[in-house]
Amino acid sequence: MKFKVRFIPDNATAEVARGTTLLDSAIMAGVDLQSTCGGKGSCGKCRVVVEGETDSNPTTKIAEELLARGHRLACQTFVVDDVVVRVPEETRMRAGKILTSHSTTSHLKLEPMALEVDVQLPKPDQTDNVADLERLARALNREAGELHVPIDLMRALPRRLRSLHWKGKAFLAAEDLGGGLVDFVSRDKCQVGAALDIGTTTVVLSLVDLNSGKLLSTASEYNKQMRAGDDVIARIAHAEEGGLDELQRLVLDTVKELLREARKDSETLGPCDLTALSVAGNTTMIHLFLGLDPSYIRQDPYIPATNVPLTIHGKESGLPMHPHGLVYCIPGRAGFVGGDITADVLASGMHQREELSLLIDVGTNGEVVLGNDQFLVACSTSAGPAFEGGEVGCGMRAMSGAIEKVCIAEDLETKVSVIGCLPPTGICGSGLIDLLAQLFVRGLVDRKGRLQAGRTRIRKKDEGCEYLVVASSGPTGNEIVLREDDIANLIRTKAALYAGCRVLAKSVDKTFDELDKIYIAGGFGNYIDIENAITIGLLPDLPRERFEFIGNGALAGAVQTLLSAEKRREAMRVHEDMTYIELSNSSAFFDEFSSASFLPHTDLTLFPTVARSIGS
Amino acid sequence: MKFKVRFIPDNATAEVARGTTLLDSAIMAGVDLQSTCGGKGSCGKCRVVVEGETDSNPTTKIAEELLARGHRLACQTFVVDDVVVRVPEETRMRAGKILTSHSTTSHLKLEPMALEVDVQLPKPDQTDNVADLERLARALNREAGELHVPIDLMRALPRRLRSLHWKGKAFLAAEDLGGGLVDFVSRDKCQVGAALDIGTTTVVLSLVDLNSGKLLSTASEYNKQMRAGDDVIARIAHAEEGGLDELQRLVLDTVKELLREARKDSETLGPCDLTALSVAGNTTMIHLFLGLDPSYIRQDPYIPATNVPLTIHGKESGLPMHPHGLVYCIPGRAGFVGGDITADVLASGMHQREELSLLIDVGTNGEVVLGNDQFLVACSTSAGPAFEGGEVGCGMRAMSGAIEKVCIAEDLETKVSVIGCLPPTGICGSGLIDLLAQLFVRGLVDRKGRLQAGRTRIRKKDEGCEYLVVASSGPTGNEIVLREDDIANLIRTKAALYAGCRVLAKSVDKTFDELDKIYIAGGFGNYIDIENAITIGLLPDLPRERFEFIGNGALAGAVQTLLSAEKRREAMRVHEDMTYIELSNSSAFFDEFSSASFLPHTDLTLFPTVARSIGS
Repeated sequence: MKFKVRFIPDNATAEVARGTTLLDSAIMAGVDLQSTCGGKGSCGKCRVVVEGETDSNPTTKIAEELLARGHRLACQTFVVDDVVVRVPEETRMRAGKILTSHSTTSHLKLEPMALEVDVQLPKPDQTDNVADLERLARALNREAGELHVPIDLMRALPRRLRSLHWKGKAFLAAEDLGGGLVDFVSRDKCQVGAALDIGTTTVVLSLVDLNSGKLLSTASEYNKQMRAGDDVIARIAHAEEGGLDELQRLVLDTVKELLREARKDSETLGPCDLTALSVAGNTTMIHLFLGLDPSYIRQDPYIPATNVPLTIHGKESGLPMHPHGLVYCIPGRAGFVGGDITADVLASGMHQREELSLLIDVGTNGEVVLGNDQFLVACSTSAGPAFEGGEVGCGMRAMSGAIEKVCIAEDLETKVSVIGCLPPTGICGSGLIDLLAQLFVRGLVDRKGRLQAGRTRIRKKDEGCEYLVVASSGPTGNEIVLREDDIANLIRTKAALYAGCRVLAKSVDKTFDELDKIYIAGGFGNYIDIENAITIGLLPDLPRERFEFIGNGALAGAVQTLLSAEKRREAMRVHEDMTYIELSNSSAFFDEFSSASFLPHTDLTLFPTVARSIGS
Repeated sequence: MKFKVRFIPDNATAEVARGTTLLDSAIMAGVDLQSTCGGKGSCGKCRVVVEGETDSNPTTKIAEELLARGHRLACQTFVVDDVVVRVPEETRMRAGKILTSHSTTSHLKLEPMALEVDVQLPKPDQTDNVADLERLARALNREAGELHVPIDLMRALPRRLRSLHWKGKAFLAAEDLGGGLVDFVSRDKCQVGAALDIGTTTVVLSLVDLNSGKLLSTASEYNKQMRAGDDVIARIAHAEEGGLDELQRLVLDTVKELLREARKDSETLGPCDLTALSVAGNTTMIHLFLGLDPSYIRQDPYIPATNVPLTIHGKESGLPMHPHGLVYCIPGRAGFVGGDITADVLASGMHQREELSLLIDVGTNGEVVLGNDQFLVACSTSAGPAFEGGEVGCGMRAMSGAIEKVCIAEDLETKVSVIGCLPPTGICGSGLIDLLAQLFVRGLVDRKGRLQAGRTRIRKKDEGCEYLVVASSGPTGNEIVLREDDIANLIRTKAALYAGCRVLAKSVDKTFDELDKIYIAGGFGNYIDIENAITIGLLPDLPRERFEFIGNGALAGAVQTLLSAEKRREAMRVHEDMTYIELSNSSAFFDEFSSASFLPHTDLTLFPTVARSIGS
């Protein structure tokens, strides 16, 4: 049983399970709200106005008077029925970062991948006897021979022009994508674009009105390739063993489902109305999506087939879209710093700011970018999937039944909050960060990650100690425990990310103090508790207001490049100008990694607020 | 039984029937020889050196000493066995007109439609880790993202580069055709181009070495579309009745046969080696070749789908060639002045000469172009197929058994020469011109085209008089006769052509006296007797040295555009700059046509040499 959450004035809708927060619903609908506390209810920035019934946690962040008029914190309000949610302008994510509504795209110069031009041609006669194609080209201000028309469209054109009485709408590719004719149709037809974020784990698609930039709907699904392995290395291995076609089919099947889902409220839209698709994904995902051989990405020196994927036509894509529509993939920088990171950069705007920024995409690989409008350096830390539910016994993805927040009180009482108000079945990334930080703060785990045997809830087993998070829970009534080897994996992951940041900073002779902003990207990034992430040494110990969540930067970048030629040019410049630092054989990285493999770090002077809170 | 005639140094070969002249053999092999008398043996320009046995008519144009060393007139020498023919430099057709050998293309800046570049890529390592495509682009001096690669080639590229040890040959489309990568292959592979002339009646194809411009082989066939009607109007009607796909298939089948034929001596060539095809044809033929709807070409105001056909890829062409190879069609000017006429203009070079020229393509439509390097005007005269064997009872195409020359002596003895030394079965265009002129000169037909009853060989029948050309001949022993209604059709055809020339000249305020050159194009044009053509009023009565045969100008133009970007640009300029004059509703044309519907013309002052010879 799902409920519809409709956001206005965007008119974007998400279908969600009972108990989903309005903040999560907004993310699923592609409506981005301000939220700097990661959904804890403490920043008060995600205020919305509810029309309909919901459940809410009590809050002091909203005045009684406004509460009475339906104002709620989106992160503390849960869906129990269909509901309409109005998003006040002040709650929207800063313009230019994520384009989801007319108001936030209005500052962009709209030059979508496919544009439409109303055309009225003079009927030919003996004094004006230019041929059909040249007549159309003339009306579009092109030279004869300059307007590319696919041969099968050319075959249909003479009859089409006459049956439409020389009046219609030309769908055209943007100049930077060749400028060819996509279709010539009657004026009552319309086209739509889509932005696609292909993650190793999840795939998200937004339908966008190309004329207005308005977001129409968003859908997300797990990547069906998951059956072939959790991470990109496993996928490449599967492709090498003859599974390339299968992996391509699986991701295409995922996208097809998303298209069905995203289109289901727009009955007037058929496959041929989808004329433009902009895709962000890591390099391996893009290879598999396009059917390119990814083998050499995982072999030293890690060379992709291309970092600047070709723009292909709809009919080459295997997707239900206009055969002459365009599929554009955002260029990446290297085998492990892909177009999704370029998209993050675009979404953050860091490449246009004078101040120094750090961008962290906390995914399976943990990519990091440092720079400003003068330079960009990037690396991939191979952090591993510990924060995505992998490599940790009780780990799971952020889905219903996952513990997403953990708090251990001074009396060592352990409180958890669970996605979907269900009995917990495991712990997702944000919960694991909270848990590890709280164990450390309460002295239950030491700086080396060892659990303190004999303390409350800590049990000694043959393979080491474990902490009992939940005594008996879930459908099967199992315990949820965190073992020492789980902690070791979490420390390895956070150490890799932190070490990557350090190597980048040193490579350009900067210190963390000089950072003006730290952008945290990735669906995951929207939910973590900054304080706890600093406590375990995942994020640098900097003033908290410098941290900013940019949500799904890959999707936001895909929307930007779908709608703007300038953003496509910027993406190409990021590809060209970003310096990639290969960490796989880097001794500097190995040293940093070793130093960071403690809670929070061997060098406590790097974490002054943590040092204070643990009394060191 | 066919014999091989090999021309050196071209190393081009034709397979011909016994009795074929060496001049005809040279045309079939794509080797163009000087010949201004039209094969009468009177100009002496087609001198070649024979190595092997042949039959020759006696000639006074070659010194005894040279005759003893194997020198022969190509037009007076007949094939009786396999033979090797050496073409002296002075016998070649003027450079720039027809490109058939290395020596005659050497003046062209060779920028073929597809070029090849030897590439040696540095093997990637961690200090040089750009991706495969970008590595290749760099080696080709292109920016990443600028080199278009078809998606299926992109899919194969990583493995291909490594299996070739980073060394190979890039086949690339010319810059003006998009500059994309056609293929990346091992260095021992080679590519070839083809030039194609699609006539309503015959289709001719030449294979050309794209690197040297050298002509490799030539083949010709009747257009298999003939079964659907002799002229373009019949073909368009057939297409409108649902026969478009069939007509496209028929012409493609014709081209496939030509490719088989042209390739049969090059066993190393496979379909994928053909990377470039340049096509000349009239507008309807190009529409049918590309599968474009030709319906509106025959409806007032006669609008083609396009005069600037799209360059398509091999896989879209339906032909056995490289899937990413290019098919370019020479742009035309109007529904009845197509790319074949543009090709004629290129072959003649008239668009680059300061002096005024007239170009006449004596095909089914009889297109005429007048101009110089400042302007070009063109028209189509709808002359009809009388000179191609249609509309004339005894008419036939120039094939074995056709009477190609007729001479009526003062004693009215009628001598004929027959193609292939066979008993005659009919009369082809050149023979009909000879016959009508000789009948007129001998007073057997009057200026209105009426046969003089009671004279030798003239018999009176119910439907009018007829002239007995051959008493009893051919396999069936039938008589060959020319009837008065045949004569009326011949006069209509020649009158239309002449009237078209007059209208063009008047349109730009020029007289025929100002013409420096009259180019005669079309396979047909190589064989006609200028003197006789003037006698009947088909060609203007000008000094004979101003006439020049350019042979198959359509094929020559296709070869030029295959090999040269400059020629492709010139073709586009001809398309843009040539003024088309529509004659279908022109009263000026109708007046000129009426005046020209006599032998040679109502106004004998226009034909002073004819007037003298008939004593008027």
